[in-house]
Amino acid sequence: MKKTTAPTMKDVAAEAGVSLGTVSKVFNHIPVGDVYRQKVEQAASKLGYQVNSYARGFKTNRTQTVALVWPTLRNPFYCYLADALVGTLMSRGYRAIVTITNYDSQAEQECLNMVRQNKVDGVIALTYNPNLEVDPALPFISIDRHFRAGVPCVASDNFGGGQLAAQKLIELGCQRLLFLGQGSGLANETDKRRTGFEAACQAKGVPFDALFLENETGFAPFEPFLVEHTRNGAFAYDGIFCSTDRLCYEIRKRLYALGVRVPDDVQMIGFDGIYRFDSEDLHCSTIVQPVQDIARTAVDLLLNENGASLPALVCLPVRYQSGGTTREAL
Amino acid sequence: MKKTTAPTMKDVAAEAGVSLGTVSKVFNHIPVGDVYRQKVEQAASKLGYQVNSYARGFKTNRTQTVALVWPTLRNPFYCYLADALVGTLMSRGYRAIVTITNYDSQAEQECLNMVRQNKVDGVIALTYNPNLEVDPALPFISIDRHFRAGVPCVASDNFGGGQLAAQKLIELGCQRLLFLGQGSGLANETDKRRTGFEAACQAKGVPFDALFLENETGFAPFEPFLVEHTRNGAFAYDGIFCSTDRLCYEIRKRLYALGVRVPDDVQMIGFDGIYRFDSEDLHCSTIVQPVQDIARTAVDLLLNENGASLPALVCLPVRYQSGGTTREAL
Repeated sequence: MKKTTAPTMKDVAAEAGVSLGTVSKVFNHIPVGDVYRQKVEQAASKLGYQVNSYARGFKTNRTQTVALVWPTLRNPFYCYLADALVGTLMSRGYRAIVTITNYDSQAEQECLNMVRQNKVDGVIALTYNPNLEVDPALPFISIDRHFRAGVPCVASDNFGGGQLAAQKLIELGCQRLLFLGQGSGLANETDKRRTGFEAACQAKGVPFDALFLENETGFAPFEPFLVEHTRNGAFAYDGIFCSTDRLCYEIRKRLYALGVRVPDDVQMIGFDGIYRFDSEDLHCSTIVQPVQDIARTAVDLLLNENGASLPALVCLPVRYQSGGTTREAL
Repeated sequence: MKKTTAPTMKDVAAEAGVSLGTVSKVFNHIPVGDVYRQKVEQAASKLGYQVNSYARGFKTNRTQTVALVWPTLRNPFYCYLADALVGTLMSRGYRAIVTITNYDSQAEQECLNMVRQNKVDGVIALTYNPNLEVDPALPFISIDRHFRAGVPCVASDNFGGGQLAAQKLIELGCQRLLFLGQGSGLANETDKRRTGFEAACQAKGVPFDALFLENETGFAPFEPFLVEHTRNGAFAYDGIFCSTDRLCYEIRKRLYALGVRVPDDVQMIGFDGIYRFDSEDLHCSTIVQPVQDIARTAVDLLLNENGASLPALVCLPVRYQSGGTTREAL
């Protein structure tokens, strides 16, 4: 597909009046004098010369390509993060290869093997596979999950978010709090939403209960608990913190079916910050994750351009936003 | 980053008991006898040999990489399509480079230039730039928008979807219909949602109006029309077809503020098929786009493995799904 008329590095050298070696150095980011670099860049721009990244991949062992190993692009939060990561990588001159695993451990390993064939410069993964075999030489950043020594994890301040949710519900007048959560059972950063919530309830001396369902499919398994704790349309708790906005939506729907009104009878706070259709409307009051900050931090750590020693974990600040399931004072 | 212990093609040849040339042919998809191919594949698998795609990119001029030039991963419908396209490409052994343009024409051109540097085998684009400069030698598939001769367009049956929406509203008892739409002003396949709707209204002899806002930002520009046509909580139309689910959501919210109840006073149908959080709950009754079919068709046409002549346009069948904004008989 390469046009036969495409300019070559030789053409650029002739146009710039420099040696072929100088042109090669500039394209491979090897330092040369500023004057030479400018001459080469101007000549390349004038001729419309495009660096052949494949050839560069061979020469410098860098491909300017980063792989995302991602569960899905159907969950809105994963979409927001992927959008921010691809945008951040592009703004740094990197291409993003996106692979989708549908939460399947084996597919994750296959994705990693596939992108390694392509010699990517690094991987950013949101993985559900604790046994993933990663080439230790391949820069690797994990989102939300601790992976192993040497692999930095970037996440929201989940503990702080859990605390904030409890504090908000208490501030809004709730006196009997409930945490509802659901997850894969793999230890991960998002577990701290619960511990933060419980710590804040204890600190404030407010009674609370917690129900965490592990490895359950769907939301029906929450129904017996909701039914048991509802009598004549009155729910046993007046404030609920759900581990995700999605869970908050599903619980609210089921409470509504039981005659419990949100936010009149029960106030609810979720976690993530999902907007309907990317409008300004949240699905619920929520702890908003700092998507852009997570993306920027993950890319910074992956490229690690100043060669700093890598942290094990970076937690980024969250914020509370009211979204219709709490009774804010007007 | 290549491990020094990684097996080479030479190792595979020795293990398989065949010549290096045979191994090379197999990895480059050049026909050899089945027995030889099996020997090579078994040996490669046993040794854990990984084909170096970069080297292959040079030799066969194929990179097994396809680029998506995409507006955003924050709009749910674009996410569904990207998810299906990446999944389909991966199942065919192709990697997807995802670039995000944020609807910016210049960014689209830059994305295309960037992926060309990487010698992708083809591009699938959802573009808002009618002046995009595309290398005619680069296989290119356009989603939803006619682009130019030789570039196949893959879309839903938008005309049929518009007809279906009108027929459903009429079937559900509506007598005064309204089309509401919003778009970029660029001619594209989605315009046919309106023409299909109007054709079905005319065929059934049902009166209708239409309001299409071009290049308007946000949804506030619809408000004057809604206010004008509402008197004492009664809206001048009893059935509305909106060009997207997102628009349906925004119009419903504004009608609610005017005291108009959906679906009691007015029934509404959107277009796309967006589920809340990828649950089973739609935002509204809607014409569901066949996301998987669109992805499969786009990839088939792009790879065009049997060398068939390419169609200018492929329209894929849509279906209606009730989602709470219509009054279906129980």
